[in-house]
Amino acid sequence: MDERNVRILQAVAELGTGSPDEISEYTDIPKSTVHYRLTKLKEDGVVSNDLLDVDLEALGLEITVVTEVIAEYDEQYHEDVGEQLAAIEGVNQVYFTMGDTDFIVIAHLADREMVHRLISDYEAIDEVVRTSSQFVVETVKDEPHPLNDFELETVVESIADED
Amino acid sequence: MDERNVRILQAVAELGTGSPDEISEYTDIPKSTVHYRLTKLKEDGVVSNDLLDVDLEALGLEITVVTEVIAEYDEQYHEDVGEQLAAIEGVNQVYFTMGDTDFIVIAHLADREMVHRLISDYEAIDEVVRTSSQFVVETVKDEPHPLNDFELETVVESIADED
Amino acid sequence: MDERNVRILQAVAELGTGSPDEISEYTDIPKSTVHYRLTKLKEDGVVSNDLLDVDLEALGLEITVVTEVIAEYDEQYHEDVGEQLAAIEGVNQVYFTMGDTDFIVIAHLADREMVHRLISDYEAIDEVVRTSSQFVVETVKDEPHPLNDFELETVVESIADED
Amino acid sequence: MDERNVRILQAVAELGTGSPDEISEYTDIPKSTVHYRLTKLKEDGVVSNDLLDVDLEALGLEITVVTEVIAEYDEQYHEDVGEQLAAIEGVNQVYFTMGDTDFIVIAHLADREMVHRLISDYEAIDEVVRTSSQFVVETVKDEPHPLNDFELETVVESIADED
Amino acid sequence: MDERNVRILQAVAELGTGSPDEISEYTDIPKSTVHYRLTKLKEDGVVSNDLLDVDLEALGLEITVVTEVIAEYDEQYHEDVGEQLAAIEGVNQVYFTMGDTDFIVIAHLADREMVHRLISDYEAIDEVVRTSSQFVVETVKDEPHPLNDFELETVVESIADED
Amino acid sequence: MDERNVRILQAVAELGTGSPDEISEYTDIPKSTVHYRLTKLKEDGVVSNDLLDVDLEALGLEITVVTEVIAEYDEQYHEDVGEQLAAIEGVNQVYFTMGDTDFIVIAHLADREMVHRLISDYEAIDEVVRTSSQFVVETVKDEPHPLNDFELETVVESIADED
Amino acid sequence: MDERNVRILQAVAELGTGSPDEISEYTDIPKSTVHYRLTKLKEDGVVSNDLLDVDLEALGLEITVVTEVIAEYDEQYHEDVGEQLAAIEGVNQVYFTMGDTDFIVIAHLADREMVHRLISDYEAIDEVVRTSSQFVVETVKDEPHPLNDFELETVVESIADED
Amino acid sequence: MDERNVRILQAVAELGTGSPDEISEYTDIPKSTVHYRLTKLKEDGVVSNDLLDVDLEALGLEITVVTEVIAEYDEQYHEDVGEQLAAIEGVNQVYFTMGDTDFIVIAHLADREMVHRLISDYEAIDEVVRTSSQFVVETVKDEPHPLNDFELETVVESIADED
Repeated sequence: MDERNVRILQAVAELGTGSPDEISEYTDIPKSTVHYRLTKLKEDGVVSNDLLDVDLEALGLEITVVTEVIAEYDEQYHEDVGEQLAAIEGVNQVYFTMGDTDFIVIAHLADREMVHRLISDYEAIDEVVRTSSQFVVETVKDEPHPLNDFELETVVESIADED
Repeated sequence: MDERNVRILQAVAELGTGSPDEISEYTDIPKSTVHYRLTKLKEDGVVSNDLLDVDLEALGLEITVVTEVIAEYDEQYHEDVGEQLAAIEGVNQVYFTMGDTDFIVIAHLADREMVHRLISDYEAIDEVVRTSSQFVVETVKDEPHPLNDFELETVVESIADED
Repeated sequence: MDERNVRILQAVAELGTGSPDEISEYTDIPKSTVHYRLTKLKEDGVVSNDLLDVDLEALGLEITVVTEVIAEYDEQYHEDVGEQLAAIEGVNQVYFTMGDTDFIVIAHLADREMVHRLISDYEAIDEVVRTSSQFVVETVKDEPHPLNDFELETVVESIADED
Repeated sequence: MDERNVRILQAVAELGTGSPDEISEYTDIPKSTVHYRLTKLKEDGVVSNDLLDVDLEALGLEITVVTEVIAEYDEQYHEDVGEQLAAIEGVNQVYFTMGDTDFIVIAHLADREMVHRLISDYEAIDEVVRTSSQFVVETVKDEPHPLNDFELETVVESIADED
Repeated sequence: MDERNVRILQAVAELGTGSPDEISEYTDIPKSTVHYRLTKLKEDGVVSNDLLDVDLEALGLEITVVTEVIAEYDEQYHEDVGEQLAAIEGVNQVYFTMGDTDFIVIAHLADREMVHRLISDYEAIDEVVRTSSQFVVETVKDEPHPLNDFELETVVESIADED
Repeated sequence: MDERNVRILQAVAELGTGSPDEISEYTDIPKSTVHYRLTKLKEDGVVSNDLLDVDLEALGLEITVVTEVIAEYDEQYHEDVGEQLAAIEGVNQVYFTMGDTDFIVIAHLADREMVHRLISDYEAIDEVVRTSSQFVVETVKDEPHPLNDFELETVVESIADED
Repeated sequence: MDERNVRILQAVAELGTGSPDEISEYTDIPKSTVHYRLTKLKEDGVVSNDLLDVDLEALGLEITVVTEVIAEYDEQYHEDVGEQLAAIEGVNQVYFTMGDTDFIVIAHLADREMVHRLISDYEAIDEVVRTSSQFVVETVKDEPHPLNDFELETVVESIADED
Repeated sequence: MDERNVRILQAVAELGTGSPDEISEYTDIPKSTVHYRLTKLKEDGVVSNDLLDVDLEALGLEITVVTEVIAEYDEQYHEDVGEQLAAIEGVNQVYFTMGDTDFIVIAHLADREMVHRLISDYEAIDEVVRTSSQFVVETVKDEPHPLNDFELETVVESIADED
């Protein structure tokens, strides 16, 4: 992995496309290079398919941390706090839940130093009262395409119910 | 949404591609129809970009549940239990964590009946001792492309450290 | 309060009616006595309105206990356990909840001896692992008619949404 | 269910009577209509008996939420906070308990949006420090007439003890 | 039990003696009456032995409540708070413990109203942040003379170790 | 403190009397010695008053431990377990409580070795699942005569209510 | 153990050496005395080896306390609080952990009075919100040389991985 | 760091000496090499002083994990379990504590794989019911020489009290 690859993959994520044209324009990397490198990344398994799903481990983002966040309890506070949590680097998912009215936050990180920074970033949010972070020993499943979590019939039925 | 759309979107998820050829072969829906419908789904916002990210709400998967699972404590048990949890319909992510050595599981569901079934499915795993599920009131962030969680420099630096 | 009053009020509760005819037939207390006594109970405030809502304190059911029940975790166990809990004398409400997958049970009782018996009854259910009971210091609200919990418009709107 | 039915049922709850005269006066719906509709609601099972017990599901109030409320700890605070909790729309029962000196609150709601509003309403009470809400998966028992929770003899004895 | 008996028993407790002379002087009840009544109380089992141990149930103090108290955390705060807790009516024991640095308080009370007052008294102490009270279902043992908790040899040995 | 003093004080506790006659008979220590030594113990402050309340510290019982005991949950189990707990040396009070249906146990001990033995004794009870012991840093109050916990009027009123 | 021995052992700890020269200079105790006494301490088992590891029990530091510290949650607060905790007398280890973002502190103490002082010292730190201390019943292992915790190969491999 | 250095440092830890003679005999590394390398390790800061304290980070043991262990509750179980915990590779300290009667275990590890193995090793102990591990973000203090935790006078006084 070099910087160019990272720039291309971030363009993919940011633009939501694998089009060499658009990526080239966004990154100033020649279109043919974009094309060549994307093909190479797919061959190397960093990108796993046509939908360009990236392999977190291959990118060095080996650490996953699940954090429970307890924040001060004020009217509508959860919108502000939720957005501040979402803006922290490495934070991938933020859920505002009913039980204990906390946030559950999932972050991907590269090393111990980033863990340290993540916790400092939580501390820097005024309304945050308390956090409890859990280190993930093993990610058993993390399916990028939720439809893969279902049998075809289940989703079809559920849609039928809706209508 | 009708059944054909669901079948096309599941083919996308399963095959990891948006190629009308492959989807047509997999679903027995004519290639032109696949093409037409994918374009339409994109226009309708069910599919948000070229990477064909789906909108869970548009698919009727409105409910997100975060569950803490405590299982019996035996050598290597977490591999078996983890796989059983991952195989339950609707389960999207399964993390084996260090604190309390539990699993944290995230599932997407369509309605109350599916919530009921999810909990019964957890109960049906022998080694599971206890579950505590939290209803998500609001999904503040759920980024399908983790690279969007970072500044360019952070990832570049982190790769440099690795090498 | 004497035994006749209790028998009449239980007939009301059991039959779901305040009709002196039906109550008389069910209790073998003469119809005119039923009528006279119901009127008297209303005057005395034991029964608060035409819907014959009873005043728990007037009946000597002064103690309210809220119990969290944790039961063994087996497939569909919650149906069996739920029914056993519901059948215990004094138990008024039984909820099977998502968080910790426990039951929350609300019971009304007359004295310490009945509290003792209630806890022994919980213990006698095989699948029950653990209970934690909380004594209610004050019942701030216990509205027998849930529609009183809402503004008219809220319910009307909610019905409109459904259709 | 249409608006007229809702208005009639709320009059029943508010006035504590099924008398068409009083309901008609309160709602400005002609007496004969009130009579006809109540009969119809009983036939449809929305109202289950002469005491006009309503079926929450039939009214669209499908969701039950049990909430633990922790409030600031000040002299007599629980009276104020208790009343504020009781005044929130959808809140059906409020208990001030001895353990942890919290409130346990039970609410009935129609949909996710109302859950969202309920939690915002809790947040809007200054003295409330923290809430933890549990979604009810199944209401195993919710007996509107507590006398049905007892054997006849138990209540008779308990009254004898009192005197 | 009448007021005179209560006054005599409180004099016993306050003065730490069963001497009719001293009790008579303290209470202004004639010495012979004191003597007669103490003998009678012993016969009735209200007072169980020569050491004049009283039977709490016979005095109507049927309720025992164990409370965990969490207080604000400030230098030496526990001395002030401890004394305030000890001064509350009905409070019998106050322990300042190492785990969680809380107080454990044991109180004897006569009825629900006194429970209510006890909790209000806790709330009235500024530094108290939170209390959790547990109702005692059964007092299995409450030995007024701790030496009865030991074998003779154990205490003898322990004294030998000291010297 | 020598062995004779200990034997006399245990006789006081066991027999519930300070009568030199009875103590002499029970201990085989001459009556005059009993009388002389009790007077001396009172002068030394080991025994604080005519009711012969002993000073735990003076007896070397300096350590107080409060233990929460969780036991297996079976019908009537709490009677058996309660008695076994009450029989352990050093255990002074055993309460069976409603919250979590655990026992709260208070013990007085002389040194670390006895703490070790106490915990082993808890472990040796089959039905005991888990214990959590708290070391008391300071006993703020431990009133041997509960009537001292009340104002005269409070007890008088409470008795009046009873009758 | 007399004061001179203590001074010599503290010099060893402070200077990180067993050299009689340096210790003599630091303590003003003649070099020959230092030499003689260190040899004697080793023979007596107070010092267990050439590395001069001391036996805590032999020094009278018999009590070990593990404390969880919860502190106010502010940016970088953990650095300040961590240092204040580390400076308290008797505190041997201070860990800032991810779960609940608390400190875990291990202290060695000589007697109850020092336990009392330790807890007062924690209370005196402004940012400390709450502490929970656990008394160690038995130190099963406390290895001064962490390399003894590993097989040779494990450390060799781990170093190989690094390079 | 190469294998020879590791072998020398483990000999130091195992033998409790820095004597080149003894280390040479134990490791079969020539005495002069031992001497040279120890001097070099001191210069490089891997070994910090004459007492040969090693720097964990320099050895690649960068991760510290604090684990709470809950084990089955049986007579004397804690001796067996304690020893099994102490024998796990990487485990440095094992405390059997009074609160919750659990073990607190501190381990040093080199990488994620060793964390994984550590948790599997805990799982492999039959009597272990549950573990909760906390990742240490920062070791604020870990003093190898406990005497450095005290002022001179404190230890002197404490010894005086003993005698």
